[in-house]
Amino acid sequence: GAPLAVIAGINVLEDLDLALTIGSALKESCAALGLPYMFKASFDKANRSSIKSYRGPGLDQGLEQLAAVKEKLGVPVCTDIHEPDQAARVAEIADLIQIPAFLCRQTDLVRAVAEAAEAKDKLIQVKKAQFLAPWDCKNIVSKIGEVTKTERVILCERGASFGYNNLVVDMLGIGEMKKLGTPVTIDATHAVQLPGADPRTAGASTGGRREGVAVIARSAVAAGADGVFLEFHTDPDKALCDGPSCLAIETAKPLLTTLKQLHEITAAAS
Amino acid sequence: GAPLAVIAGINVLEDLDLALTIGSALKESCAALGLPYMFKASFDKANRSSIKSYRGPGLDQGLEQLAAVKEKLGVPVCTDIHEPDQAARVAEIADLIQIPAFLCRQTDLVRAVAEAAEAKDKLIQVKKAQFLAPWDCKNIVSKIGEVTKTERVILCERGASFGYNNLVVDMLGIGEMKKLGTPVTIDATHAVQLPGADPRTAGASTGGRREGVAVIARSAVAAGADGVFLEFHTDPDKALCDGPSCLAIETAKPLLTTLKQLHEITAAAS
Amino acid sequence: GAPLAVIAGINVLEDLDLALTIGSALKESCAALGLPYMFKASFDKANRSSIKSYRGPGLDQGLEQLAAVKEKLGVPVCTDIHEPDQAARVAEIADLIQIPAFLCRQTDLVRAVAEAAEAKDKLIQVKKAQFLAPWDCKNIVSKIGEVTKTERVILCERGASFGYNNLVVDMLGIGEMKKLGTPVTIDATHAVQLPGADPRTAGASTGGRREGVAVIARSAVAAGADGVFLEFHTDPDKALCDGPSCLAIETAKPLLTTLKQLHEITAAAS
Amino acid sequence: GAPLAVIAGINVLEDLDLALTIGSALKESCAALGLPYMFKASFDKANRSSIKSYRGPGLDQGLEQLAAVKEKLGVPVCTDIHEPDQAARVAEIADLIQIPAFLCRQTDLVRAVAEAAEAKDKLIQVKKAQFLAPWDCKNIVSKIGEVTKTERVILCERGASFGYNNLVVDMLGIGEMKKLGTPVTIDATHAVQLPGADPRTAGASTGGRREGVAVIARSAVAAGADGVFLEFHTDPDKALCDGPSCLAIETAKPLLTTLKQLHEITAAAS
Repeated sequence: GAPLAVIAGINVLEDLDLALTIGSALKESCAALGLPYMFKASFDKANRSSIKSYRGPGLDQGLEQLAAVKEKLGVPVCTDIHEPDQAARVAEIADLIQIPAFLCRQTDLVRAVAEAAEAKDKLIQVKKAQFLAPWDCKNIVSKIGEVTKTERVILCERGASFGYNNLVVDMLGIGEMKKLGTPVTIDATHAVQLPGADPRTAGASTGGRREGVAVIARSAVAAGADGVFLEFHTDPDKALCDGPSCLAIETAKPLLTTLKQLHEITAAAS
Repeated sequence: GAPLAVIAGINVLEDLDLALTIGSALKESCAALGLPYMFKASFDKANRSSIKSYRGPGLDQGLEQLAAVKEKLGVPVCTDIHEPDQAARVAEIADLIQIPAFLCRQTDLVRAVAEAAEAKDKLIQVKKAQFLAPWDCKNIVSKIGEVTKTERVILCERGASFGYNNLVVDMLGIGEMKKLGTPVTIDATHAVQLPGADPRTAGASTGGRREGVAVIARSAVAAGADGVFLEFHTDPDKALCDGPSCLAIETAKPLLTTLKQLHEITAAAS
Repeated sequence: GAPLAVIAGINVLEDLDLALTIGSALKESCAALGLPYMFKASFDKANRSSIKSYRGPGLDQGLEQLAAVKEKLGVPVCTDIHEPDQAARVAEIADLIQIPAFLCRQTDLVRAVAEAAEAKDKLIQVKKAQFLAPWDCKNIVSKIGEVTKTERVILCERGASFGYNNLVVDMLGIGEMKKLGTPVTIDATHAVQLPGADPRTAGASTGGRREGVAVIARSAVAAGADGVFLEFHTDPDKALCDGPSCLAIETAKPLLTTLKQLHEITAAAS
Repeated sequence: GAPLAVIAGINVLEDLDLALTIGSALKESCAALGLPYMFKASFDKANRSSIKSYRGPGLDQGLEQLAAVKEKLGVPVCTDIHEPDQAARVAEIADLIQIPAFLCRQTDLVRAVAEAAEAKDKLIQVKKAQFLAPWDCKNIVSKIGEVTKTERVILCERGASFGYNNLVVDMLGIGEMKKLGTPVTIDATHAVQLPGADPRTAGASTGGRREGVAVIARSAVAAGADGVFLEFHTDPDKALCDGPSCLAIETAKPLLTTLKQLHEITAAAS
């Protein structure tokens, strides 16, 4: 079977040094473990809870940083887009174009991403929305399939709404998503967020549960996930976005080591 | 207290005749009951489950139809937008600009709507997303408040995710939303939808439960909602979008009569 | 149509004076409004969150108090049981024997209640468990139907689990339960409870939201409920059980007046 | 760290041959893997969806079968009780007395089990109810702690209500339960059940998803569960209760082998 895929990096681009520091540490860890690695970072956080929150460097500077990471580290990169007209430009740099969870039902965005991926021979990652059932992803894959081959598609689980201000990852959903014929990754970083309830900022940011990231990652890999999506920082408490669910970069190697072992055992058992 | 507000019309614009037929019937019913009326219709359904679904006439023809309804019937009109760059043009015609539920956290869209509403002195209706708690609307109202006065804002309840392929309306949430200082409407039409599970189209459309629309509308008005949002058609089973949750226009007058009575009793009790 | 049925009283029996005070006030209000009235009180709270919580006077003294209320006020009475061997004794006094929500799937208890109701010609109220769908009540009604006629059965909605430490009342569920052929009541008092989260006692009691009781009652009546289940106290903050969701007895008359009006309008509309 | 504990056997006792066949196969597999093993079977299924369902041999014959398994196989045994007055007799045979999920808030039952466990120096397993949050188990542990030492307590996760007719296992909840100071097991067999929705019997039995049992077991062990609870049969499709979630006994050894490996990696990582 294929080795566990690792899509990991930082939540939102801050400065190039941070991106290179995180990216090179992850590249090294993955290389040592024989795991395929792709760097991830957002250039714009378009749905922050508060209008005052840091959003990122924006499209132009963001793509520059991503191109620099790609060139200097020699790794593929992943980023997410929010408007259809960003797709073509992003596809020039990104190897994996990500559709955000809240936007995964927006037909124009899905179509634009599919067209850009087709034009530049890139991959597409769809974050399953918090309001969708695993099998509801079928419609999204079908939309993409009307534009390009569905072999480009990766589905990503990041939790489902569970009452108010809470998410839950349904481990049985991973198998349901895999039945659609696509690889499935687990975004353990966002899956532990408690929407709308970060006590540090009186409800203005999306809260997290840092200690749960490894738990969700391990569980999902044992449930059959093909890859993991993780966000790190050199100083998580000072991360400019989603710090509460961000892991310290020093924890990457031991976590990935564990996940690789769990993935091998699970693959052998299935 | 204020009378029950009625925002009602059709799901998506089909042809002008339909819009005028529905709009004039609703205008007449509301006039007879002494209820303020606003016509609603979408020009684009940007998040249909399937890429094959009918989406509407688009921005140009849609605004033409809305302008015609506005002029011929002499009623205010409401429509929803999906991209920030639609805001300014829509605000020229629409009296109430609506932000769709899935998009209510997209900062650029919220800001664009707020700016257009400020420029043209229009109202803003925010559909509460299925993944948000009632109190989470505070952040959205705050975002708007950084651009224009929050007196322009109406919050609209349309159900919360409840397990897979189901929504539930939490009647206690209406009071929580009203605590934010805005009027609250109930979108009874979309609240009864069963996401992703319409047996008529093998899961490719969002299913509905037509008989439940009146139940949700009555309950929400008795819970304290300030207005209702309802969609009608001359032939609901042939509606080009969301037929399963669409009401026959003949049922409008008796339903609105009941809702008016419930609203008056509730207002007197509170 | 039948008038709105009122099953109301106190959460748990404290002393006879309290029972008579509450019962006579409710009897009087219902008589003035032309609504059928039944007194409710529990003799044992068998599932308190803490072993230290007040549980009530127990079976012997409890039945004495209920018999006294029944005789002195001339009203029918309702109480709930927790063990099969309590059924026969309770059926001698109670006119309506209630099966608690958590226990509604326990076959021996359901059968014992059905047999006692059959023997003494009494009614049965089944609280729908927080973990059941409305249509799942079918199995419970069927169980009773194997012992006695299902015309004895009343189903009572008191909320469904909605994430952690929260309940939600699905107003569409009331109609689903009515499709089973039984009257449906709304327990607005317990429906507003926040399980496991009363800040006053650091999580050791089941919390409530007193201001929501009237909201849920009004909404459910407007959704088509046939009766209401409500708990009152002369001093809610000093109630020995579930004070946070308990209403002051002075509020009974205005609330019941509103509910009667809503019920009449709803009945006329259906 | 401690090896993974295995509590496994059959759903409900049918005949002694079945119990011995399943028990000896599991004993052998666990011995080969170095995992502690305890046989589990119920003598009464007290909450079947239908009154017509098979319930088991009852207390007398059930305890006889359990005693025979215990003596012939030389393994400890676990069974569940439903009425307080069963506790003392069950504690004479059972090494682990289990409190069913729906009944875990019934104070008299919890107290009776605690007293019997104290008297006979036995263990107690509490199934967390589908309507409880992980942290709500604190009250149950406290109740037991007023009667006997809480070192006797094992908490068992078996899923939480997730909308209608569905359960979800929150893998983050396992850690929350472990914070209460007790070992935590995963009942993967019941966690995959779809309450009230088995198509084979038109909704009269609790449905299951057999293929999901291994997924939930693997995930929960990777999340940190200390033990697994699993049910097997020689012919799952003919099991007299809960066949849809029952595993074939031939699958036990490979599954337990995988779980042991996952547990060791997880223990090393934590």
